[in-house]
Amino acid sequence: MRVIRSVKQMQDICRKARRAGSSIGLVPTMGALHEGHISLIRASLKDNDITVVSIFVNPIQFGPSEDFKQYPRPVSQDEALCREAGVDFIFRPSAGEMYPAGFKTYVDVLELGSVLCGASRPGHFRGVTTVVAKLFNACLPDRAYFGRKDAQQAIIIQRMAKDLNFPVSVKVMPIVREKSGLALSSRNTYLSQSLKRDAQVLSRALCLARKLIRQGVRDPERVTGKMASLINTAKSAKIDYISIVSTEHLKPVRVIRGSCLVAVAAWFGGTRLIDNTVISA
Amino acid sequence: MRVIRSVKQMQDICRKARRAGSSIGLVPTMGALHEGHISLIRASLKDNDITVVSIFVNPIQFGPSEDFKQYPRPVSQDEALCREAGVDFIFRPSAGEMYPAGFKTYVDVLELGSVLCGASRPGHFRGVTTVVAKLFNACLPDRAYFGRKDAQQAIIIQRMAKDLNFPVSVKVMPIVREKSGLALSSRNTYLSQSLKRDAQVLSRALCLARKLIRQGVRDPERVTGKMASLINTAKSAKIDYISIVSTEHLKPVRVIRGSCLVAVAAWFGGTRLIDNTVISA
Repeated sequence: MRVIRSVKQMQDICRKARRAGSSIGLVPTMGALHEGHISLIRASLKDNDITVVSIFVNPIQFGPSEDFKQYPRPVSQDEALCREAGVDFIFRPSAGEMYPAGFKTYVDVLELGSVLCGASRPGHFRGVTTVVAKLFNACLPDRAYFGRKDAQQAIIIQRMAKDLNFPVSVKVMPIVREKSGLALSSRNTYLSQSLKRDAQVLSRALCLARKLIRQGVRDPERVTGKMASLINTAKSAKIDYISIVSTEHLKPVRVIRGSCLVAVAAWFGGTRLIDNTVISA
Repeated sequence: MRVIRSVKQMQDICRKARRAGSSIGLVPTMGALHEGHISLIRASLKDNDITVVSIFVNPIQFGPSEDFKQYPRPVSQDEALCREAGVDFIFRPSAGEMYPAGFKTYVDVLELGSVLCGASRPGHFRGVTTVVAKLFNACLPDRAYFGRKDAQQAIIIQRMAKDLNFPVSVKVMPIVREKSGLALSSRNTYLSQSLKRDAQVLSRALCLARKLIRQGVRDPERVTGKMASLINTAKSAKIDYISIVSTEHLKPVRVIRGSCLVAVAAWFGGTRLIDNTVISA
């Protein structure tokens, strides 16, 4: 396994590999790798000749009051996990390599980026789409792997890849959860034992939503109301949003029908967590 | 020569060509080809194994009151010119192929797109950078060729390609002029004989600017003032802007020093023309 830090070198390697007929899988991450990331890596290893894991804590997707500085960066642990998993290349550029002086170009997906998480994190998805466009061009993948945990991100990136004709197949892989139901996230390391216990209400609320919808409830407000009551049983929980939206336009549905995303975000102490489930009704 | 109309097919062809070790040159155009375009095609043919000319009148770079509908589309003449020149592929997608329902993604280069032509054509450069990003991904070129006549466009595209790590070398080729000095433009076909004669003042004003600067004038307002007087000798001319800006930031210079772009836009009847010259002082 090699660690590459320059865009130019990464491009040269990937161009050469493609010319030799090898397929390339990219797993874009911000590091602090957990089993969720590893599941993406495994999928890439299975589908492609070469797997690149990018590790880059992307400054432009963090708001000024967010956790950019404290975001975990366990570099040697991440490298060991990648090596063990069988990754071929880690692409780990510096912020200066990705955003040199004079940088001025941004990729925007209209509408989809201003709702749900975008409402409380203005500019976040612009930062995400911009860095992913750069990573696609740096690593020239045939396939790129994202987790369904960040459902809105995955939908926005699929839209961007399609709209800009990126010759990349965007794969969205299932959420990986702890036994307790808590969705794996690098931000879970911020949680104390008791906050972590409280945070289990998110996945329980999503299970409740599935159950209600399976029972025939079609009124989104009835479902989100019940979810809110359940989440509020956790003392530390502060709900950011609970929404049931169409998976294509991310617009709130009036009646639960077809493919819907049930998405939730809530604060537990100083940590904002998200979770979701996709339902076909 | 083959004419390709689907993004997917164009990508397949270019991917296969690259895998076979061929280099690809792209000449993005809106058709209505003239000697300026042909000079780009010749440069591409010289540098690359395969030359793709894209012909697409890009709706999203036209304002609502602009000439999208009337823009010339001499399809069979363009194809004949390309065939004669030795072009390998014309990529001529429909608007629906480029912007299908649900399209939502735009590429923006901040600051550079709101000055000069951007001031009177809001959204124009966003449309340009978005379509060029799409064309880069559809045609996967090693090199792409643009004319210096659209100097601001060329500078913005170079910035975009660099910022988003497109593995494409952006080549900017000299302006091609009529004997009269008039810069070639597809929009010259809109001009009557007398308007065309009037329009010669643009290149004469740029020659005057070069002469004044060579003589040691360093005050940009002194130069643009003299240019304006000359342009206004043409009865039909209505100046949009005359600016002397740095070639890197497109910001007006206070003193003419280093690499400067002298740029001018003016209306002749209902036709807006642009011209420019780059000066090292």
